[in-house]
Amino acid sequence: MDLLTEKFAKLGVDSAPGQEKLQGETKLDLRGCRLPGTPVDFSHGDVDAFEPLPGSKEAFDAGYLEGGRQAYTEYRGSASIRVDVAEKLSAFTGAKIDPAKNVILTPGTQGALFLAMGAMAARGDRVAIVEPDYFANRKLAEFFECTIVPVQMRYFESEHESGLDLRELEEAFRSGVKLFLFSNPNNPTGAVYSDREIRQIAALARAYGVSLIVDELYSRQLFDGRGYTHLCALEEGPEEMVTIIGPSKTESLSGYRLGAAFGSEAVIARMEKLQAIVSLRAAGYCQAVFKVWFAEPEGFMERRILEHQAIRDALVKTFRAVPGVRVRPADAGSYLFVQLPPLDVSIGEFVKIVRRLADVTVTPGTEFGPGFTDSFRINFSQDKTAALAAVDRLLAVMERYRRS
Amino acid sequence: MDLLTEKFAKLGVDSAPGQEKLQGETKLDLRGCRLPGTPVDFSHGDVDAFEPLPGSKEAFDAGYLEGGRQAYTEYRGSASIRVDVAEKLSAFTGAKIDPAKNVILTPGTQGALFLAMGAMAARGDRVAIVEPDYFANRKLAEFFECTIVPVQMRYFESEHESGLDLRELEEAFRSGVKLFLFSNPNNPTGAVYSDREIRQIAALARAYGVSLIVDELYSRQLFDGRGYTHLCALEEGPEEMVTIIGPSKTESLSGYRLGAAFGSEAVIARMEKLQAIVSLRAAGYCQAVFKVWFAEPEGFMERRILEHQAIRDALVKTFRAVPGVRVRPADAGSYLFVQLPPLDVSIGEFVKIVRRLADVTVTPGTEFGPGFTDSFRINFSQDKTAALAAVDRLLAVMERYRRS
Repeated sequence: MDLLTEKFAKLGVDSAPGQEKLQGETKLDLRGCRLPGTPVDFSHGDVDAFEPLPGSKEAFDAGYLEGGRQAYTEYRGSASIRVDVAEKLSAFTGAKIDPAKNVILTPGTQGALFLAMGAMAARGDRVAIVEPDYFANRKLAEFFECTIVPVQMRYFESEHESGLDLRELEEAFRSGVKLFLFSNPNNPTGAVYSDREIRQIAALARAYGVSLIVDELYSRQLFDGRGYTHLCALEEGPEEMVTIIGPSKTESLSGYRLGAAFGSEAVIARMEKLQAIVSLRAAGYCQAVFKVWFAEPEGFMERRILEHQAIRDALVKTFRAVPGVRVRPADAGSYLFVQLPPLDVSIGEFVKIVRRLADVTVTPGTEFGPGFTDSFRINFSQDKTAALAAVDRLLAVMERYRRS
Repeated sequence: MDLLTEKFAKLGVDSAPGQEKLQGETKLDLRGCRLPGTPVDFSHGDVDAFEPLPGSKEAFDAGYLEGGRQAYTEYRGSASIRVDVAEKLSAFTGAKIDPAKNVILTPGTQGALFLAMGAMAARGDRVAIVEPDYFANRKLAEFFECTIVPVQMRYFESEHESGLDLRELEEAFRSGVKLFLFSNPNNPTGAVYSDREIRQIAALARAYGVSLIVDELYSRQLFDGRGYTHLCALEEGPEEMVTIIGPSKTESLSGYRLGAAFGSEAVIARMEKLQAIVSLRAAGYCQAVFKVWFAEPEGFMERRILEHQAIRDALVKTFRAVPGVRVRPADAGSYLFVQLPPLDVSIGEFVKIVRRLADVTVTPGTEFGPGFTDSFRINFSQDKTAALAAVDRLLAVMERYRRS
């Protein structure tokens, strides 16, 4: 097999969220009749149920009217918008961010993640990745021909911590890991790392000279008044690190494809060089939408968080009422990672069956680590009534496949 | 030097178009006083002088109103928009394009180029690149750790052809080149490949099993009623090829970051896998703007082409009036690649000096190939009066540095 064939064989997208429509017609073990109801796509949030931040479209319109100046920004993003974003992210995280040196605007946080990996991980490097964690993390490591060193998160065994195995992490770092990439809150479980965990990750990274990429995409949507420690603000952090965040999730601005990365000057400089050949810049007119980020009307974010918390609670209750089904309530974000009892079909087949019989789309656990053959992820940023009914249908279908 | 340092050392962006603001203050051999006048940035087109296609903003607004369906498209782009784009590109080029298999929408043509290179060129592959050609082509080959095999274009020595050295191209193909990437019309010279040249490239690619990436970004803006042969429409083409095009140039839609690639099904599939980890998709709302592309009001494109042709003619006349200055009139597009007489300063210094003394930004020839130490590129999609005055200032500054 040639290099490219090998590389792309590892980069499947058929089961990736949002790609389900492209799945070919496979023969499935369909049991029982279709269950009617409003189709729900849990693979991503529903921006019709939770609308884009107020004023976002007006900000776009103003950007468009600026004309050429807004259409052609520096590759790292418009200078004046970087000033605004750096100030807001400094206030939010406590990190020092020089808009000229420490921040880059990207096409979505996916764009930021790709650039950060490309700037920090070379072919052959050992990269530590949490299991479970965001599916693209593994794919990126594979694309850049790195060796993945998995570290387990025991998310069912700890309540006020993420459950990351810190001894395993240190073992990985000792084995020569160059880069540790993780999401906090964790995607797919919604687990938030405790202050103790974050401080220990920072100390270990510094001690072993490991670089960090911290994906804080969902860090604004914390439930139950929970605390959150931004690693980037700690004195004891590592020499080289980048934090990634963006307005695509809680803020529902995904249609504009906006993200931001901030951190070490040298890494940001490399990320810009890479962005120059990857996509030039985040769409110029869209960059103007950053203005409404962290400038929401009073009470808006609090309300949005409470609404999500209520959906979480209702769904957790529903799942937990079913014998053999396990779920850890998300500390933050809008994902639930649900474990099922043994079934007669694989998780890949189950996901396709549920889509066919119940019009419900979920993402198989195996996207988040090879071992999660009994789990699936849902994004519960949905219309509450539709989401609850969809989960009822999913569970009804599940019963037809429960291994006896 | 470690792998990453080496890789990024080759990816300079300081002299890249649009990045000039980030250049540090260097000590320059400044001769004479500043020449006042309207600043002109020839590094890219001026979308205030040539406005975005009529109806583009309304198309965006409609996309925004579609909500979630438009915000979250498949990674390769919205299915219905792909149907529309495939139909329009089929009609334009004569190629057969199945919207389900042969086309992907990308964040700008830069995005398409990156994905195509990533999907078609593996580490260690030999990649043929024209000199001069678009600066990112070389950088992409270097990023993907390919070996660049340069092929010369003698653009001053041929009028109805590009002047590509086809014997050198065959030599390169015979030496084991895997991929040939070129822009037509050529960027930076504006030279259009003749029917004979295109047919021979196609035949050579097929004979030697070479894959092709043809960047047709400027192929709608042909001057003087010139013909144009789309390689993708030829029967005798190679097995694997991708054509790249987008509405950022003639159509002035750059602020939305839209591009498209079409071609071999297997390559498009790989490009989508790569897009999934690079940036997910072209901004969802922006994709809606594709609707106005190739659907311009009657006479609009013809008028725009004539306006550019008039600017080209006026600038060519101005340049040619100066002893030692050479320029080939662009057959298409909006670039001129101007050769200067021997100067006391390098082209890199000259470009910085002109920016400082005359408020005129141009791109040094060395971005388009290491040998072009006596040339610079301008994008003449500008306000005509301002552009002519700016070139006068540039030439006045030039005289102060002419080697005696």
